[in-house]
Amino acid sequence: MPGHTKRYDVVGVGNAIVDVIVQADDGFLARNRLEKGAMTLVDADRSAALYGAFPPAIEVSGGSAANTIAGVASFGSSVAYIGKVRDDQLGEVYRHDLRAAGVTFDVPAAAAGPETGRCLIVVTPDAERTMSTYLGISTMLEPADVDEALCREAGVLYCEGYVWDAETAKAAIRKAMAATKAAGGKCALTLSDGFCVDRHRDEFLGLLEEYVDVLFANQSEICSLYEVDDVDKAIDAVAGQCEVAAVTMSARGSTIVTRDARIEVPAWSTGVVLDTTGAGDQYAAGFLSGYARGADLERCGRLGSLAAGEVISHVGPRPATSLAGLARDQRLS
Amino acid sequence: MPGHTKRYDVVGVGNAIVDVIVQADDGFLARNRLEKGAMTLVDADRSAALYGAFPPAIEVSGGSAANTIAGVASFGSSVAYIGKVRDDQLGEVYRHDLRAAGVTFDVPAAAAGPETGRCLIVVTPDAERTMSTYLGISTMLEPADVDEALCREAGVLYCEGYVWDAETAKAAIRKAMAATKAAGGKCALTLSDGFCVDRHRDEFLGLLEEYVDVLFANQSEICSLYEVDDVDKAIDAVAGQCEVAAVTMSARGSTIVTRDARIEVPAWSTGVVLDTTGAGDQYAAGFLSGYARGADLERCGRLGSLAAGEVISHVGPRPATSLAGLARDQRLS
Repeated sequence: MPGHTKRYDVVGVGNAIVDVIVQADDGFLARNRLEKGAMTLVDADRSAALYGAFPPAIEVSGGSAANTIAGVASFGSSVAYIGKVRDDQLGEVYRHDLRAAGVTFDVPAAAAGPETGRCLIVVTPDAERTMSTYLGISTMLEPADVDEALCREAGVLYCEGYVWDAETAKAAIRKAMAATKAAGGKCALTLSDGFCVDRHRDEFLGLLEEYVDVLFANQSEICSLYEVDDVDKAIDAVAGQCEVAAVTMSARGSTIVTRDARIEVPAWSTGVVLDTTGAGDQYAAGFLSGYARGADLERCGRLGSLAAGEVISHVGPRPATSLAGLARDQRLS
Repeated sequence: MPGHTKRYDVVGVGNAIVDVIVQADDGFLARNRLEKGAMTLVDADRSAALYGAFPPAIEVSGGSAANTIAGVASFGSSVAYIGKVRDDQLGEVYRHDLRAAGVTFDVPAAAAGPETGRCLIVVTPDAERTMSTYLGISTMLEPADVDEALCREAGVLYCEGYVWDAETAKAAIRKAMAATKAAGGKCALTLSDGFCVDRHRDEFLGLLEEYVDVLFANQSEICSLYEVDDVDKAIDAVAGQCEVAAVTMSARGSTIVTRDARIEVPAWSTGVVLDTTGAGDQYAAGFLSGYARGADLERCGRLGSLAAGEVISHVGPRPATSLAGLARDQRLS
């Protein structure tokens, strides 16, 4: 595991996306042909039409890896982010919110091209979230945006699978991973979404061989990766493919998998579940905050459970309270 | 009181403003020289500097009269809005949120000039809100933006005192008031803020004589209007100056004042007080929804208390639930 000699505990790479959040019922999903629980990519026209059908909304900065990085910052770790916004109002909001969370974010805003990406999120009364993402300018992340010096200073480089939907961004991620590994850092990947794995299975399997030390996936994602129906078979398949894999299973907690061990970690809850948006992102945040500091794997998993339990207790994808303080309260720091 | 012959129960005129909301403590207010509980006007530079000091925020459509109009719509009444946004992302968000709330809003977006206005709101742990407003393009509302045919179809025209801070907008409001009155509609005004009254006392007193049938004010605003320290003296002064004045007194409810009567109305609460932003706006929404339908004044006040109690139970300046449904539950519809 990484030591403390790097400037950044964790550096994240992902699609920079502003969330547009509404609360609505299952009938709204049906009327608007939305697949419940999924992240669906939409083009600008579909995004605009869907937004037109939305009730009044709130806007809040999101993006999977950025949510994770903001969570790691909330644990008191040093973090940076690599992603692409336009020089528009939502891009300014996005940069503000990351920097205000303590995240170094110096990738310049694009002066031309599509708008800052946005994700239309419907939260249903069962706390499930259904996402329709217009990637916008986030797809334009390119190798020139990756500061190799920054990656060399990363204890862990954390990448989201969603980036594979953005063609020019893939090369940027490979550049970042190569620079991180060459300097002795670790690489982490989240598979992001079952449909995303369907779209990019072979590339993800290749990344596991070439770069990835730490893999995050939920049940449907890990089963999709290995094209099996049984999560135990998927866990057998991933064991030893990377240093450690953390497989999340909603309310049943997570299983941490190494070549030689399986560690079961329970979920944690405040007692309130309002909006599951960001649960996986924050599990990764808690896990990585521990991992980057050399905590044992069970403690990493418990920190993940803690951060996930906090974020699902309120609307919005990033922590609403200090995770460092919460960890102290729960005797996990 | 207005009957049911008009197309719109209530038409609002105000500064179209997007709220940027954070939760922070009193120390944050002190460090940033913010006057607790007040609405302070700031220029673009101060707004940007203050935003730079803000923690991560959420964005949500606001603006005093627009909040009221959205609340009236939530009671099931027919409403329209007159205000000015830019053709920028926050302007689009603003228009979406009003229309999605059921509000007719057809004033064209400005193609040039300052950005859509924004209000930086700090909510402290005592639920008090402190506002710093950059008016932006909202100050450019002009008489040409006022559709007199729309005003002639208004049962009540509702205007916010804040508009008097926008020089070209004053003439627009006078045009709207004149058209409404000429067609037999009523005019309502909220004094908005004690400091706002200090800035425009003589003009507000002139409006009371010339146009205003229904006046909304809190204690500090009505005392400031008549330059007295005792709210009873202010109530004596306003009695008979207009058809009806509603003076709100936070947790102590409101006093409804006519030439001949004083009606005391209690506050209403869900038991939760999280964010007092929009309390006065929603009191006006409830009152006007009853008034436009010919309800007696006590019922108007109770509907005001209901809407105010709903909005302070959550973060954000507009209703989070159907006020028509809440009124039914409370046997007020």
